[in-house]
Amino acid sequence: MGSALFFDMEALEAQSRYKILTATVTPRPIAWVTTRSEKGVVNAAPFSFFNVLGHEPPTVALGLLAGEGRFKDTAANILETGEFVVNLVSEANAEAMNVTCIDAPSDVDELTLAGLTAVASRAIGAPRIAESPVSFECRVLASLVTGPRQTMVVGRVIGAHIDGALVQDRERCYIDTKALRLIARMHGSGWYARSTDLFQMDRPKWADWQRDGSTDQPQPGPPS
Amino acid sequence: MGSALFFDMEALEAQSRYKILTATVTPRPIAWVTTRSEKGVVNAAPFSFFNVLGHEPPTVALGLLAGEGRFKDTAANILETGEFVVNLVSEANAEAMNVTCIDAPSDVDELTLAGLTAVASRAIGAPRIAESPVSFECRVLASLVTGPRQTMVVGRVIGAHIDGALVQDRERCYIDTKALRLIARMHGSGWYARSTDLFQMDRPKWADWQRDGSTDQPQPGPPS
Repeated sequence: MGSALFFDMEALEAQSRYKILTATVTPRPIAWVTTRSEKGVVNAAPFSFFNVLGHEPPTVALGLLAGEGRFKDTAANILETGEFVVNLVSEANAEAMNVTCIDAPSDVDELTLAGLTAVASRAIGAPRIAESPVSFECRVLASLVTGPRQTMVVGRVIGAHIDGALVQDRERCYIDTKALRLIARMHGSGWYARSTDLFQMDRPKWADWQRDGSTDQPQPGPPS
Repeated sequence: MGSALFFDMEALEAQSRYKILTATVTPRPIAWVTTRSEKGVVNAAPFSFFNVLGHEPPTVALGLLAGEGRFKDTAANILETGEFVVNLVSEANAEAMNVTCIDAPSDVDELTLAGLTAVASRAIGAPRIAESPVSFECRVLASLVTGPRQTMVVGRVIGAHIDGALVQDRERCYIDTKALRLIARMHGSGWYARSTDLFQMDRPKWADWQRDGSTDQPQPGPPS
């Protein structure tokens, strides 16, 4: 460890704040969001300002940024229709996801462009992506304006579609996380991480700690 | 791909919803949160329902869950004091972070227990962790009750402390993300991911796409 440098986030330019946050808060899970506009155009785009934030009810949050004074299609559709699908992104989906990052006009269906298959959802108008291993149908629970050009959307997860080959026990809801092979967003222009280098740590218990003392610290397990 | 199985998230038990969400939305970045209670007790605990959600102003979100009818110390302190520090977790911090997961009574300072060093913050009462490579001083911008036992806290990032050895260019705010070697939360009881297996993809441009056609799809780069 060197000594810490301090960055005054209130004084920095917006672009510098963006660089610091996206270069440090990593890896970020990716919501590959599909929407349908009120005119019926399907849009798709990945968001890495995303995570699950609760389970009663099941909620996910998305940070929407208005780049040049307006929200891009997918973000605008979420706010207009109140509905969206979060598709998760496996290694096999990486290239197709990247195609949907394209700066296409709003009437372009990015799914068709990327050779992907839209499948009708059960409860909402926005379709899911057949090639994604996990898709969540979501309705907007709340939207929170956190700045003049950014809004946080909280989605309530209504239903989940999961590739049957990855469901180990349907009744007990066991999913084979390692086999999902999801990718996550890292830093800079287009860096991503595979979730392949895993390890396990047992959570310590206070009763054991008091008995054994702090010399018996839990150790990280070997890589999987 | 097998065929997709559907899980009705409205009908499932809370524990099943939790399993599905935490086994699929991966890898999740970790906020190792430090707080100081109104009585002056310092608490620390990791949260993986966390991400950056905007940069104008810089915002992070945390999902707080009230396990057995009440929030745990760190969550309660955030809501009481409106202040917290998000420390990010490197591989070198893994064991110490795991110690702070312990189910200790609320008057126990988990930092001391884990052999960590609390350093006074610049703008807020909660200390940061000296051993963490990146710490954000945060003030609560908004809290949103998303369910009877869960609250989402949006923090405004006031300042960032970053290990000087990891800052490549202070003026231009270039951080050496790979050297941070942050870990992220995966599934089940205690699975984590290292952010070591990286690749890069160039974002496609609409002008190029129209000229070259969809046969010239961008390819994922080699592992770093």
